[in-house]
Amino acid sequence: MKILEDRIRREGTLLPGEVLKVDNFINHQIDPQLFMQMGEDFYQHFKDQQINKILTLEVSGIALAFAAATYFNVPVVFAKKSQSLTLGDDVYQSTITSYTKQKTYDIRVQKSFLNQSDRVLIIDDFLAMGQALGGLIDLCDQAGAQVAGIGIAIEKAFQPGGQLYRERGYEIYSQARIEKMTEEEIIFCQN
Amino acid sequence: MKILEDRIRREGTLLPGEVLKVDNFINHQIDPQLFMQMGEDFYQHFKDQQINKILTLEVSGIALAFAAATYFNVPVVFAKKSQSLTLGDDVYQSTITSYTKQKTYDIRVQKSFLNQSDRVLIIDDFLAMGQALGGLIDLCDQAGAQVAGIGIAIEKAFQPGGQLYRERGYEIYSQARIEKMTEEEIIFCQN
Repeated sequence: MKILEDRIRREGTLLPGEVLKVDNFINHQIDPQLFMQMGEDFYQHFKDQQINKILTLEVSGIALAFAAATYFNVPVVFAKKSQSLTLGDDVYQSTITSYTKQKTYDIRVQKSFLNQSDRVLIIDDFLAMGQALGGLIDLCDQAGAQVAGIGIAIEKAFQPGGQLYRERGYEIYSQARIEKMTEEEIIFCQN
Repeated sequence: MKILEDRIRREGTLLPGEVLKVDNFINHQIDPQLFMQMGEDFYQHFKDQQINKILTLEVSGIALAFAAATYFNVPVVFAKKSQSLTLGDDVYQSTITSYTKQKTYDIRVQKSFLNQSDRVLIIDDFLAMGQALGGLIDLCDQAGAQVAGIGIAIEKAFQPGGQLYRERGYEIYSQARIEKMTEEEIIFCQN
């Protein structure tokens, strides 16, 4: 998706450890016009998949999943990282490791929000090692829900997550796939 | 806002400690149509305030703030509760206490995303004791940004936050103001 690639080139910065900082328009400050275009782009890609639910993970996936949901006109469910008074014990739970946050944590979805009649579009902002994605797929598996598609804003194609889950048969659509990042330039995959 | 009040009456449930559970359509699963209507409602209320930025707090405020931002066509900034590799030290920080989460935590905004030329609309899902709101106002004060309005989905009008900040001169617009909640019924303020 060219507008996203251009934006990453223009405003993304590299931090040590191959961390791409896109706080200007995705992870801390959000550009609503860009996100709505990205949401519509996900819709164009997956509109024939009979999606009836979008699943994402707090925090950074929420606004993007919501933008897509306005086009699909289906509910968004966001898996929670923190325990809260309003989240009971009747949950599906999976454990994931975040490289960016440098910790392991549990994600949870209340069982009533995922079930075997669901055809789920998973949306997240980043795909790198595939840890978060693996956790979200695990939640769907536990619920007996079908993962009908996976929509990612930025894939670090030089890390193994995308290949791993494509080889397992998942349909992953990434709007910007980064082949290589250096301090001088960010190179996107051509496909 | 009648559609929100009706939805709360129909699907909201009460938990001990006067916690209102609206996970079905706000806090865990999100109804995008409802949120876009709520976003437009905030726009209708605050459109003459020269808003150039919307500030909210992760997690539950994000989708609602984003929905409003699509109408205002301004960026959303969400204050972060967690430290991350991509958030540097150059931040405004405030400490708030969450009753629902039963803990005290810091919220942070990178300094580059709030400044004295900003006219900020603060949006959050709940207003009860006013702790989160106080933290967001504090971040704006530190940045020298003007709080041009405060938009809340659900205000527990029987708790002191709303009155406290209205008395301090803030323009608070709550879409559903709860006067009283019991296990049998939820009564909304008439004004």
